[in-house]
Amino acid sequence: MNADTAAQIAADPDKVARLTWARLVEPADDQAAPLLAEHGHVEALTRLRAGADRIGRAATGRLDEFDLQRELRATRLAGARLVFPGDDEWPAGLDDLARPPHCLWVRGRAHLADATRRSAAVVGARNASAYGTRVAADIASGLVERRFTVVSGAAFGIDAAAHRGALAAEGITIAALACGVDRAYPAIHARLLDQILLCGAVISEVPPGAAPIRTRFLARNRLIAAMALGTVVVEAGLRSGSLNTANHALECERPVGAVPGPVTSMASAGTHQLVRDHRAELVTDAAEVAELLGVIGEDLAPVRRGEHRPEDDLEGPARRLWEHLPTVRPGTVDRLAHTSGLTAPEVMAALGELNLRGMAERWSGGWRKVAPDTP
Amino acid sequence: MNADTAAQIAADPDKVARLTWARLVEPADDQAAPLLAEHGHVEALTRLRAGADRIGRAATGRLDEFDLQRELRATRLAGARLVFPGDDEWPAGLDDLARPPHCLWVRGRAHLADATRRSAAVVGARNASAYGTRVAADIASGLVERRFTVVSGAAFGIDAAAHRGALAAEGITIAALACGVDRAYPAIHARLLDQILLCGAVISEVPPGAAPIRTRFLARNRLIAAMALGTVVVEAGLRSGSLNTANHALECERPVGAVPGPVTSMASAGTHQLVRDHRAELVTDAAEVAELLGVIGEDLAPVRRGEHRPEDDLEGPARRLWEHLPTVRPGTVDRLAHTSGLTAPEVMAALGELNLRGMAERWSGGWRKVAPDTP
Repeated sequence: MNADTAAQIAADPDKVARLTWARLVEPADDQAAPLLAEHGHVEALTRLRAGADRIGRAATGRLDEFDLQRELRATRLAGARLVFPGDDEWPAGLDDLARPPHCLWVRGRAHLADATRRSAAVVGARNASAYGTRVAADIASGLVERRFTVVSGAAFGIDAAAHRGALAAEGITIAALACGVDRAYPAIHARLLDQILLCGAVISEVPPGAAPIRTRFLARNRLIAAMALGTVVVEAGLRSGSLNTANHALECERPVGAVPGPVTSMASAGTHQLVRDHRAELVTDAAEVAELLGVIGEDLAPVRRGEHRPEDDLEGPARRLWEHLPTVRPGTVDRLAHTSGLTAPEVMAALGELNLRGMAERWSGGWRKVAPDTP
Repeated sequence: MNADTAAQIAADPDKVARLTWARLVEPADDQAAPLLAEHGHVEALTRLRAGADRIGRAATGRLDEFDLQRELRATRLAGARLVFPGDDEWPAGLDDLARPPHCLWVRGRAHLADATRRSAAVVGARNASAYGTRVAADIASGLVERRFTVVSGAAFGIDAAAHRGALAAEGITIAALACGVDRAYPAIHARLLDQILLCGAVISEVPPGAAPIRTRFLARNRLIAAMALGTVVVEAGLRSGSLNTANHALECERPVGAVPGPVTSMASAGTHQLVRDHRAELVTDAAEVAELLGVIGEDLAPVRRGEHRPEDDLEGPARRLWEHLPTVRPGTVDRLAHTSGLTAPEVMAALGELNLRGMAERWSGGWRKVAPDTP
């Protein structure tokens, strides 16, 4: 966040009030929510200062300590930017929440609104099984191949597998944290979070430095559910936090998918219960998730394995380049020559052929595949 | 079947006509069905003899060869009895079929109508996984503990596991065959079928000696579906015959349950599809199957593991006897003394105490447990 942006925020009373509220109260705070809904952030703050409304002594105490410049500096030091409702980057889905965040701290290269426009939340148990982590990674990769962004919570188990599956397919993935975006939680995921920043984003509704506490995890789950078009639960025990995410998705009228597993595994008991309660559709792979979440008519006919595929017709350099052509992040001719082992002229000729066949497209300075199920 | 019964059948024109039709045409025959529905078995046969209706040359040719006494003798030699609609032993569920069997050949000690009154079909893939056979056996055992008869088709894989699970829990199980009841198919299940006969039944709608051919398997599936209160599919490939059984159950307005499994296993692809198509409820254990199939209000509250159970209050011989008291087939005092290691007077005192507590009941000359979920 540069000095200009900071000055723009400082000059906007609504943004300043939102930053203040983010410091005063916990996410989705019970007492603040009705005041904000009735009066808006600026007026609610004025009433608080005048003693017309109350929100608890500790929160009110923090009002005197609030220092806008310190908040902006901390945001800059965290390598983060602030995103407010109405901003170009604000994810529209968050507006469906009964208690939306006051603002978001965002790190990473992804444009949050663009990235979440076609996105799926993939969540599940921390103590996932080998089966669960494998399926979560497969589904996340498959969603990336279908141009979905994968949203999750960077937790152990299913969350981490979902992020990693998306990264492995060179896709965009977004991690919503229960702590400040400058903190790595769990600490062992520091490198994973760094990888997510390269093309995706790490976001939070609590300020830099904020610690991950239980209520923030539960509140964070509603961001994951609301940002994505729908939520897939891969494994969940009967009291898993990911069932909480599924409930938030249902409250926002988003579809929920649940992946089955062996009935002998308690790690699948929660997903089976979701299906039994008719709160989730049973899904077994990324194609079924895409069908569940995709824009109607766009993702209804997944390519069946064993059918004839366009690449079956390719030969020589075009065939070879196809194997190395990225699905999401475009590659330059030099980069493609390097990864495919072809010469630059061969790459250019192959790209020409693929482009004529409608299989490759130019995209922000490079080339990538045209996905078969994108119109 | 004794001589008296044979004479009674020979004296009943409807029964003779039904036996004749069973010899003339294949089960659920396309051409015979509308004739039988319109005219009944006797009149349809008269019209056939008079040339007023036609059902194919081969079938008509068999009409001249039909020999009632030979059929009755073959039935007796097969150790079977004949059961007709309206007979005390006729399973009422079969009347829900669009094309009910003309009659049934039955072997085994079970009273078919009584045994199927509270019954569940447990079916699935022939090439079942170790997971599937384990779950099928567990569910069948659990159903027996809840006083259900287990109906299946004696095939390899899930069917055999279901029968074996029921037998292991000392329950009643019924096998519906696609061949005559005097044949063992598959041959390796000859011993399994013999075990089923001891307390259960082996039935068929084709005469003794008839070979198992494809159309008879498909027709047999409708008997399984219609006899039981509902059908559970444990594992099924995408084109499994057990999906055919599930469709018959739905046509008879019986509930269908489907057991999930790993999405990485093709053996569960069919059950997942049943749930995705909303043709089946997802079920994970016998309690959930009982809830799905049971009489409303009777099976809704399975005992949760870890709760206080009546047997927790038992001490000494009563406690010991409880562990050895059968759930389904009653045991005599002598038999219970033998299995529990108690003396006969100890057994009688313990039975008295269990009976006072409402935990043991007299049943056809012996004693057994009162099931906790039976009112």
